Amino acid sequence: MRVGVLTGGGDCPGLNAVIRAVVRKGVKTHGFEFVGYRDGWKGPLEGYTMELGVPQVRGILPRGGTILGSSRTNPFKIEGGVEQIKDNLAKDGVDALVAIGGEDTLGVATKLADLGVNVVGVPKTIDNDLSGTDFTFGFDTAVNIATEAIDRLHTTAESHHRVLVVEVMGRHAGWIALHSGIAGGANIVLIPEQPFDIEEVCRLVESRFESRFSPILVVSEGAIPKEGGDMTLISGEKDAFGHVRLGGIGDRIAAEIENRTGKEARAVVLGHVQRGGTPTAFDRWLATRFGLQAVDAVADREFGTMMALRGTDIIRVPLIEGTGELKLVSPEEYAEAEVFFG
Amino acid sequence: MRVGVLTGGGDCPGLNAVIRAVVRKGVKTHGFEFVGYRDGWKGPLEGYTMELGVPQVRGILPRGGTILGSSRTNPFKIEGGVEQIKDNLAKDGVDALVAIGGEDTLGVATKLADLGVNVVGVPKTIDNDLSGTDFTFGFDTAVNIATEAIDRLHTTAESHHRVLVVEVMGRHAGWIALHSGIAGGANIVLIPEQPFDIEEVCRLVESRFESRFSPILVVSEGAIPKEGGDMTLISGEKDAFGHVRLGGIGDRIAAEIENRTGKEARAVVLGHVQRGGTPTAFDRWLATRFGLQAVDAVADREFGTMMALRGTDIIRVPLIEGTGELKLVSPEEYAEAEVFFG
Amino acid sequence: MRVGVLTGGGDCPGLNAVIRAVVRKGVKTHGFEFVGYRDGWKGPLEGYTMELGVPQVRGILPRGGTILGSSRTNPFKIEGGVEQIKDNLAKDGVDALVAIGGEDTLGVATKLADLGVNVVGVPKTIDNDLSGTDFTFGFDTAVNIATEAIDRLHTTAESHHRVLVVEVMGRHAGWIALHSGIAGGANIVLIPEQPFDIEEVCRLVESRFESRFSPILVVSEGAIPKEGGDMTLISGEKDAFGHVRLGGIGDRIAAEIENRTGKEARAVVLGHVQRGGTPTAFDRWLATRFGLQAVDAVADREFGTMMALRGTDIIRVPLIEGTGELKLVSPEEYAEAEVFFG
Amino acid sequence: MRVGVLTGGGDCPGLNAVIRAVVRKGVKTHGFEFVGYRDGWKGPLEGYTMELGVPQVRGILPRGGTILGSSRTNPFKIEGGVEQIKDNLAKDGVDALVAIGGEDTLGVATKLADLGVNVVGVPKTIDNDLSGTDFTFGFDTAVNIATEAIDRLHTTAESHHRVLVVEVMGRHAGWIALHSGIAGGANIVLIPEQPFDIEEVCRLVESRFESRFSPILVVSEGAIPKEGGDMTLISGEKDAFGHVRLGGIGDRIAAEIENRTGKEARAVVLGHVQRGGTPTAFDRWLATRFGLQAVDAVADREFGTMMALRGTDIIRVPLIEGTGELKLVSPEEYAEAEVFFG
Repeated sequence: MRVGVLTGGGDCPGLNAVIRAVVRKGVKTHGFEFVGYRDGWKGPLEGYTMELGVPQVRGILPRGGTILGSSRTNPFKIEGGVEQIKDNLAKDGVDALVAIGGEDTLGVATKLADLGVNVVGVPKTIDNDLSGTDFTFGFDTAVNIATEAIDRLHTTAESHHRVLVVEVMGRHAGWIALHSGIAGGANIVLIPEQPFDIEEVCRLVESRFESRFSPILVVSEGAIPKEGGDMTLISGEKDAFGHVRLGGIGDRIAAEIENRTGKEARAVVLGHVQRGGTPTAFDRWLATRFGLQAVDAVADREFGTMMALRGTDIIRVPLIEGTGELKLVSPEEYAEAEVFFG
Repeated sequence: MRVGVLTGGGDCPGLNAVIRAVVRKGVKTHGFEFVGYRDGWKGPLEGYTMELGVPQVRGILPRGGTILGSSRTNPFKIEGGVEQIKDNLAKDGVDALVAIGGEDTLGVATKLADLGVNVVGVPKTIDNDLSGTDFTFGFDTAVNIATEAIDRLHTTAESHHRVLVVEVMGRHAGWIALHSGIAGGANIVLIPEQPFDIEEVCRLVESRFESRFSPILVVSEGAIPKEGGDMTLISGEKDAFGHVRLGGIGDRIAAEIENRTGKEARAVVLGHVQRGGTPTAFDRWLATRFGLQAVDAVADREFGTMMALRGTDIIRVPLIEGTGELKLVSPEEYAEAEVFFG
Repeated sequence: MRVGVLTGGGDCPGLNAVIRAVVRKGVKTHGFEFVGYRDGWKGPLEGYTMELGVPQVRGILPRGGTILGSSRTNPFKIEGGVEQIKDNLAKDGVDALVAIGGEDTLGVATKLADLGVNVVGVPKTIDNDLSGTDFTFGFDTAVNIATEAIDRLHTTAESHHRVLVVEVMGRHAGWIALHSGIAGGANIVLIPEQPFDIEEVCRLVESRFESRFSPILVVSEGAIPKEGGDMTLISGEKDAFGHVRLGGIGDRIAAEIENRTGKEARAVVLGHVQRGGTPTAFDRWLATRFGLQAVDAVADREFGTMMALRGTDIIRVPLIEGTGELKLVSPEEYAEAEVFFG
Repeated sequence: MRVGVLTGGGDCPGLNAVIRAVVRKGVKTHGFEFVGYRDGWKGPLEGYTMELGVPQVRGILPRGGTILGSSRTNPFKIEGGVEQIKDNLAKDGVDALVAIGGEDTLGVATKLADLGVNVVGVPKTIDNDLSGTDFTFGFDTAVNIATEAIDRLHTTAESHHRVLVVEVMGRHAGWIALHSGIAGGANIVLIPEQPFDIEEVCRLVESRFESRFSPILVVSEGAIPKEGGDMTLISGEKDAFGHVRLGGIGDRIAAEIENRTGKEARAVVLGHVQRGGTPTAFDRWLATRFGLQAVDAVADREFGTMMALRGTDIIRVPLIEGTGELKLVSPEEYAEAEVFFG
């Protein structure tokens, strides 16, 4: 049996660990051969392949990035894209695909599965916002990097009477902010699910100073002020790529706090540092086990499924479960962090 | 309401995070007062207390160790011990206890609960071998430290044609070896649950060298050879404390491999490095949530329970569930690592 | 003999290590007593002291920040400030001062020494721009943090065809950018000493993409464009504290590159993360040895001196040597990094 | 001009950084071509080469190990070895060699230079015991790894009333023990240059316990007891390779302390973890600058020289200076650490 493997979407520590596990177990246990498709769905679309066997996956377990490359190419947005993919798979003699990716990549996989392509999915999102699985790999790495940054800021905040704002990833979901805020002992955590009131934020900042300690705020990049809230600086310009530039939300909140409270406030923007580099042990273990289970699912011909973590088990769920709905931070989960505010 | 808190057994990163969460939420949400009992069950036994409030828990979240101290004192092995504890709790005006510890400490808690003491337990074992919970805090830290060590050894093993043996914690259960072995890409993992055949180990070592790579072995401190196996060096002398000394199992396996294969073999013994220092983000998050839930259990007067992680939820289970039986690595779980052997 | 100790200026990993060494050796070898002056020169100015002995310095070696607090108070800018300091020293029975700080703090020390105050200085600047010493403590920590960030960005840059800009500390001197740029394998390093031409930067960015690799730029916060250079975005607004806000130079260069080359560009702003937290082994060793030597200089009554690293020796130089002139990156030193550009 | 490059001796973080700098600057500035000789002097001896150009050195800067491999082969111990080397260099069209290694590898280089081979040396020893240079690369990495281990042990030592012994590298010189002991705040440091008295060690251990703290000892692998000292356990058996096995000096000292003081004592043996993995920023900077200077020395035809760090400058010294005599810890340098003993 010949199996194609591809990775799509943004960078995420653990991608290489999945690829390695798929190939190592596929070769050893099932006697499969593999084809590496490059740059996400662009690979099968354009027949863009690379050799993929045990020698190619040697030494990649601890490495960030993906040896297969990635892209956001969507074959459903390309005239005749699906036919091209089917043709290329047939030409390459590929019977089944393992697609590793997030909402978009697995969304394509879901539709292709409906159209008869043999595909199993491995969920990937650094933001941890995919439904159907307890955790996704890459998330633990991002949370640890953010937590280490917060740890380092504590001494500076305390010795120097300054407000420090840490902007972390999370466009739609606040998981990274929530977990790193709890783990780092942040004094305020702002997430997209809970629009913030800048006046209340400033009140918390000032009450923290009154007890002679400096506040550290952790802010998701997608955090937003309450509607009607007076925070003009937030309506920043967008660049050619549609992103708010020259100061994300972290910079803007720091500026607001400085203007409103008169306290010096500084932002740290970790950006892509959170999604590169070597994965934590947890992410390597999770990614490896997703890979092992995915190749077994191929062997079992359980196509149209996605791997998911439930407790300590890796199970198979319908692809649609993972891509149907974003997993957001609930008010109850946010309340756990609020105990430590101020 | 006055609540006592104690920590027992060996060191484990996250103990301070539990204490902090118990106190912070207890004071803020429930209006509790706290008494710190020092050195495990010795504290309530001897009325050995310390002040415990919000100021005492400030800044302790990222710190290893426990501000309360610890011991292995067992009141049931002391004449009149239980009565003394009851008397001291009464004298201190303590209505309920939060006991943070492993098999032994929670075993005492279980019996005291039967005798009418109001106690809730928080499970603690770096070895991750307590039943009833998906993970215990401290384990993720230990696995990351072991994995980083294995990462560093890979380049040396490859450049210098040498066998490297990493001895990790795990007297009865192989969880640390299994997880760090998978995460670090070890070539052989030996755990207490699966007695090893030294000849088979040497065969794997040699086959690894034949493919021109040097092997890295991860070995639980409690790994044992198969009965009847010819490994005389293992029957080492015991010291005054009953531990095999002057070379644990890691040293002994390295010596055997060297003697049998003629390849140079070296051991790394991480020892207590694995159980000290700052906890990972995961362990801080888990420990904090155990603490939050434990103090809520006290408020709900759900005594005789232990906190447990199930998926991403913290639930309460009867104390007996956690202390009844060790959670061991199953043959199926071990087989996941075996795919990568050799 | 009673000796006062104070720390001034911005945060810098290693301050506590100096304090500990001064006290430990002062007590053990010289039989000194110590007075901790709080918040830099504010301490002796206002008689603001804390107890300082062996118990106070226990456990502080690996901790960031300073147990003495800090400030930028300058007694020479305060009417009668110098007299106040002399009076307070006399009142506290303090014969000599150890002043730990940068240009400003040691500048005050220099003038006070001229006015007859017994003072020895320990140089402190995270930017490594003090003359008279090979290195200052804190610098190695900052460089390591920046280097780890660059390491993590490499995989993301490569997998995702993106320009990544890392803004590091260095308002006047480019040492942190230079060292972390060399250590991290950056493709372009921009420092204050070498005004940059944005067009040349964009050419390097494009030539890097042509060889199919994504560029990583390391930029000092004080980097500036060549005069007459067309880079309008740089003339950003200043905030109430006089700092350019809502996007420092890193954000602005990323925006320029995006606009000019059409390549997506993202900035990482490490900010205060670089100056907080635990010091590296090198910084602890250097800070400890500065402290040991400083207290010996007090014992030898060699006042008006500053400790300095020369090779592997700690020597004493006149205070004026350290504070006279900034140590900048020379064109030859910059040329070493340029070999790796593009 | 064609230049050969080789690496010899034990593993050392930074080797790849030297190779990369030599090649990058050699190609860009001097227009050199390169030949990689594999496995140390075995490479030119047996004509065992690999391609070495800009593509081969891409991405290797942060990696431990050496892409050229290494060995301890000594051509002077092989009949006709020197002639073979000269023949192979001629056959490969190699005009000059860059030899990267320690005492042995540079010792060969020194003799070959006398015999007319064009060679420049780059000093490499993780133990930092080469004369003629302030520091060697790899040392800073080893010291940081040992210091992090000591940091982690502090909490365990304090919470659990236990003696912890950390065995670090250093067969002849105590630099790693000295620096990590100072940086980690060890209570006792034992090095080969200062034979220890086990009774005095036990006295320090006990006095430390009396002040209610647990002691941490850092011990060089080459530490030795004073002659006539009663420490029978040290006369351990040797294995087939001539190393004392089944418990190095760390294990033996722990056993002695346990037997003599009745306190539980545990050893941590970091072993090869100290010499593998990614180099620190300092080591990458130093290794890179050694490489840049070495290839310039080749261009200047300054053969028979070795690169050396003096202050912040890289200078060229005669090869014999580096290999003549070991650099040992002086009594004065040891005394700096002794201030913190007990």
